[in-house]
Amino acid sequence: MKAPRGFALSGVRAGLRKQGNDLTLIHCEGGATGAAVFTRNLFQAAPVVLSRASLKAAKGRVSAVVINAGCATAITGKAGMDAARRVQSRAAELLDVPRNEVFVASTGVIGVVLPHEKLTKAMPLAVTRLSHGGLEAASRAILTTDAGPKVATATFRHGGRLGHVTGFAKGAGMIHPSMATMLAFVMTDAAAPPGVLKSALTKAVDASFNAISVDGDTSTNDTVLLLASGKLGNEPIADLEGDGASFLAAVTSVCRSLARMITRDGEGATRLLEITVKGAKNEREAKLAAHAIGTSPLVKTALHGGDPNWGRILAAVGRSGARFSPAKVSLSVGPLALVTNGAPTNYKETDAARLFAKEEVPILVDLAAGKGSAHLLTCDLGHDYVSLNVDYRS
Amino acid sequence: MKAPRGFALSGVRAGLRKQGNDLTLIHCEGGATGAAVFTRNLFQAAPVVLSRASLKAAKGRVSAVVINAGCATAITGKAGMDAARRVQSRAAELLDVPRNEVFVASTGVIGVVLPHEKLTKAMPLAVTRLSHGGLEAASRAILTTDAGPKVATATFRHGGRLGHVTGFAKGAGMIHPSMATMLAFVMTDAAAPPGVLKSALTKAVDASFNAISVDGDTSTNDTVLLLASGKLGNEPIADLEGDGASFLAAVTSVCRSLARMITRDGEGATRLLEITVKGAKNEREAKLAAHAIGTSPLVKTALHGGDPNWGRILAAVGRSGARFSPAKVSLSVGPLALVTNGAPTNYKETDAARLFAKEEVPILVDLAAGKGSAHLLTCDLGHDYVSLNVDYRS
Repeated sequence: MKAPRGFALSGVRAGLRKQGNDLTLIHCEGGATGAAVFTRNLFQAAPVVLSRASLKAAKGRVSAVVINAGCATAITGKAGMDAARRVQSRAAELLDVPRNEVFVASTGVIGVVLPHEKLTKAMPLAVTRLSHGGLEAASRAILTTDAGPKVATATFRHGGRLGHVTGFAKGAGMIHPSMATMLAFVMTDAAAPPGVLKSALTKAVDASFNAISVDGDTSTNDTVLLLASGKLGNEPIADLEGDGASFLAAVTSVCRSLARMITRDGEGATRLLEITVKGAKNEREAKLAAHAIGTSPLVKTALHGGDPNWGRILAAVGRSGARFSPAKVSLSVGPLALVTNGAPTNYKETDAARLFAKEEVPILVDLAAGKGSAHLLTCDLGHDYVSLNVDYRS
Repeated sequence: MKAPRGFALSGVRAGLRKQGNDLTLIHCEGGATGAAVFTRNLFQAAPVVLSRASLKAAKGRVSAVVINAGCATAITGKAGMDAARRVQSRAAELLDVPRNEVFVASTGVIGVVLPHEKLTKAMPLAVTRLSHGGLEAASRAILTTDAGPKVATATFRHGGRLGHVTGFAKGAGMIHPSMATMLAFVMTDAAAPPGVLKSALTKAVDASFNAISVDGDTSTNDTVLLLASGKLGNEPIADLEGDGASFLAAVTSVCRSLARMITRDGEGATRLLEITVKGAKNEREAKLAAHAIGTSPLVKTALHGGDPNWGRILAAVGRSGARFSPAKVSLSVGPLALVTNGAPTNYKETDAARLFAKEEVPILVDLAAGKGSAHLLTCDLGHDYVSLNVDYRS
């Protein structure tokens, strides 16, 4: 799998992590337009603060992206900001581009200042290694507790031309709307102004990264970046109607695939729970109910055991803050109705057990109180989650 | 340890659980006044619905309490209500008291109709076994995944007399404000009208059961009942001032002790995290921040490992919804300052590790944004929590 035209990538070792590559470089040859969505956590990591300001100052122009794994550079005060700026400046020098056109991102432990010398020392090698085939190396060098790389691709048509959208992401723990300890970089050969990219990305993220939850935690570093090289030679995409809708669909498809891979790769996860809540008084309450289910440790441990313990699902809905009449609620798993009008049906326990033992478990809760609906994708909570997180830093 | 004068108790086997006793009976000899606080979950178990209505109809008079473990009788429609009523009626017959003066409570699996014949069949034995020394047997027969019984006692002075407050509780999983899969029964020999009992209980619960969290889940069955026999012979307590304050302190002390035991006995717990948030804009936001910390699986798994990974604590605060300036925040564990003005101090890692490895870990977050404060007691999340919950029903 290759990156769209206009992007060269590499992944090398800087030595921040104990082993493996941990420095990723994307070079937008000839520049690109870009738009980003960042974490809503009040503690924003230094690279998040810096990249947001730089992207604004450069009016949405991006020439390079530098990503490191192993150190989040979050909650590190002025020292962290200085370190992030040094990394940005060094990349700008080496690639001969304006400093503000270098986008930086970090993932790893919070509270440690970025060892920027390690990154600046490894950067010349990262420049040497840049290639169109460097997508795989790049996608691997951003990982931390991930089981493997996450890459997705889609195509679209614009003005009769076949365009490409390709993205890669990292993230397994601390995953929650809004976004999570996740980084995603999505590239397209389309020509599009930053404003159109921003509106496409916002819609795509709402339908993908903002609809997943691994553990309810939201990181200080979450970043999704959409870059457009313009090498397709199309008339710049002016809006998301007509051919623009095809572009939006491709971006959404890539984001959805990456979000699903992140959830599937939830730390220690073995099973996906696809939650749909309908009939809520409004969308906000549907989301409250879906999130209460998707973040309940009791629901997630039962899911790990393949146990059709649906009482835990409805108990979570009951404390979610959504308003409804308990005697009207229904719940089903796949085609099997478990609860109707607030009481259990005469389903067979073996049928329920079979459906909850599958790799993907779709549940539908109907609150019968209105027209609000919401979706959330989550995973189970097992021993490996505990093992991975009891002493992540050592 | 004995119950206050006026209460006889027993615990026997009805056969709802695979082994051990599972039916508890309290007989208020000569009757008692009572007040209760129930779960705020919208799905309220049949015994919760029934006991609330009966207590109201009996104008706060209680003559007996019947508690079963092994079946929650929640989300079971009309069949569940009928089963709970049969249990209530049978106890009323055997003890020759009005049906509405029998308070019922259940804990166990959701979605299963109470096998009421098993309970009514075992009830004569429970009546035979009633005694003032039956407190221990009673406190054991209400347990489910608890490691052991939870009993607490305190004394107070009223009009020169020495009064007693004794309570017992169950609860280990599904523990969260507001309350949790927890049942608590608090008895006193004081004379007090139901209104005074209600206001004492509400204050005591806010400072105890509503300030703990094991896993963020709230059950359909949570009940705290305060019963007053009047055998102390005091002038009925008229308010919570003066000698009334001494009574309130005793009730609060018993509730706090039981709440602490429940948290300490959190499923698989090995360590307590005592969270204090101060300097929030208001109390609501302080609670948001405390609850975000106390329910974060990342914080709780790090705590399990004794890992001083404070970045996870502040990351939880940052997504909590509390408003503050990150550059002003400080965090300490016990006497050790970890973060001041939004950046790490020069603390020694070994000092932090030593404090996070203790059985009780007190942390203080100062948001420096106002005068709101909140406390929350929580426990760690380890392998045993997962093991206990992957297949609780089998």
